[in-house]
Amino acid sequence: MTFDDKLNKIRLIAGKMMSCSAHDCDHVDRVYNLCLMLAKGQKVDLQVLEIAALLHDIGREAEHNDKTGKIDHAKVGAQMAEKILKDLGVDDEKIECVKECILSHRFRGKILPKSLEAKILFDADKLDTLGAIGIARSYVWVGKNNAKIYTDRDLNSYVNENIEGGVFGRIKDKTKHSPQIEFDLKFGKIKEKLFTKKAKKIATQRTKFYSDFLKRLEKEIKGKL
Amino acid sequence: MTFDDKLNKIRLIAGKMMSCSAHDCDHVDRVYNLCLMLAKGQKVDLQVLEIAALLHDIGREAEHNDKTGKIDHAKVGAQMAEKILKDLGVDDEKIECVKECILSHRFRGKILPKSLEAKILFDADKLDTLGAIGIARSYVWVGKNNAKIYTDRDLNSYVNENIEGGVFGRIKDKTKHSPQIEFDLKFGKIKEKLFTKKAKKIATQRTKFYSDFLKRLEKEIKGKL
Repeated sequence: MTFDDKLNKIRLIAGKMMSCSAHDCDHVDRVYNLCLMLAKGQKVDLQVLEIAALLHDIGREAEHNDKTGKIDHAKVGAQMAEKILKDLGVDDEKIECVKECILSHRFRGKILPKSLEAKILFDADKLDTLGAIGIARSYVWVGKNNAKIYTDRDLNSYVNENIEGGVFGRIKDKTKHSPQIEFDLKFGKIKEKLFTKKAKKIATQRTKFYSDFLKRLEKEIKGKL
Repeated sequence: MTFDDKLNKIRLIAGKMMSCSAHDCDHVDRVYNLCLMLAKGQKVDLQVLEIAALLHDIGREAEHNDKTGKIDHAKVGAQMAEKILKDLGVDDEKIECVKECILSHRFRGKILPKSLEAKILFDADKLDTLGAIGIARSYVWVGKNNAKIYTDRDLNSYVNENIEGGVFGRIKDKTKHSPQIEFDLKFGKIKEKLFTKKAKKIATQRTKFYSDFLKRLEKEIKGKL
């Protein structure tokens, strides 16, 4: 079996394993494309990167269905990936590299990416939360969770009341959350957390686009536009 | 009971009667504010306009829960409004004016607004589908209906395959629909359907903002930004 054959099999397996609302699969496609774009001209193991991009979120469903709040999709995903790749006869060394990428791709995770492949996957995944695509995904989240399109309240009091365990903690009541709160807490700071120069540049303009959108939204809602 | 007392009662009744996901109530608030803004300097019956704005979507839940596809929220809403307003002792003449506003506020409806109050309500309601707020509401719809963030396909073939009974007909499979299809079919043309000069002006820049957003989204997804 050639590498391309294996990659196609992985793509199919990933598609089936993800809870697969259309967005999740589309997110994986976008992250995969962003990874290739960020990797251009860099010395990376493209095979590792491509596999990791396709499999990076396969642990999502387990995390989503977990009532204890203890399952981390990055950890579970890395274990799931190991099994899939062993069954396909992928080299142990490559499997370890893929696992490192998946384990360290979480924004809120404690394991930081070390290899360039892991850094690129981390960055690509975060870029998909910014810009027009980030805005679209945020409001999809609002729709799914019956959250708020807009909230006009003090961030500190909101965090005290509705976030458990500090700024990146658990949201107690999603119906009180909004993209603008999420932007202030997380999205607006993502660009500082990225690793690669190219991703930082893209993130800077995507962050500005998101921020400008929120400012306009507020003006419209307040009857100024 | 003063008019303000009655209006407060109507506001409470409307809030309770709407399926009341937070967005529906927020939409009513925004439409109410837009109505006041569009009415400024115009000779209108503000009492009629305010009541109609608060009650214009109370038929939504009945339409939403109807399996036959025959219930029209504007028609049902006008009947519901009549009962509420009679119980509150509102003048028959005003009730008739409010009913006309509610009956004719639907974009796809066959009854066109005649009075200035009805025209303003129609315009205010449509403005809330454009601009940043329109974008946000569109992706909330995507989230609720598991539709697509982005689709890259020929509009005519899409309409033939997925819309029953012409361009403004019933969407057969919502998971294949996207805001960009909705924009091409409907939102992009709304500004031409509006009645008041002020609303047309606001709609023009809100339409451009929506269209620019979709162009940017496409570029991001295609890896150009």
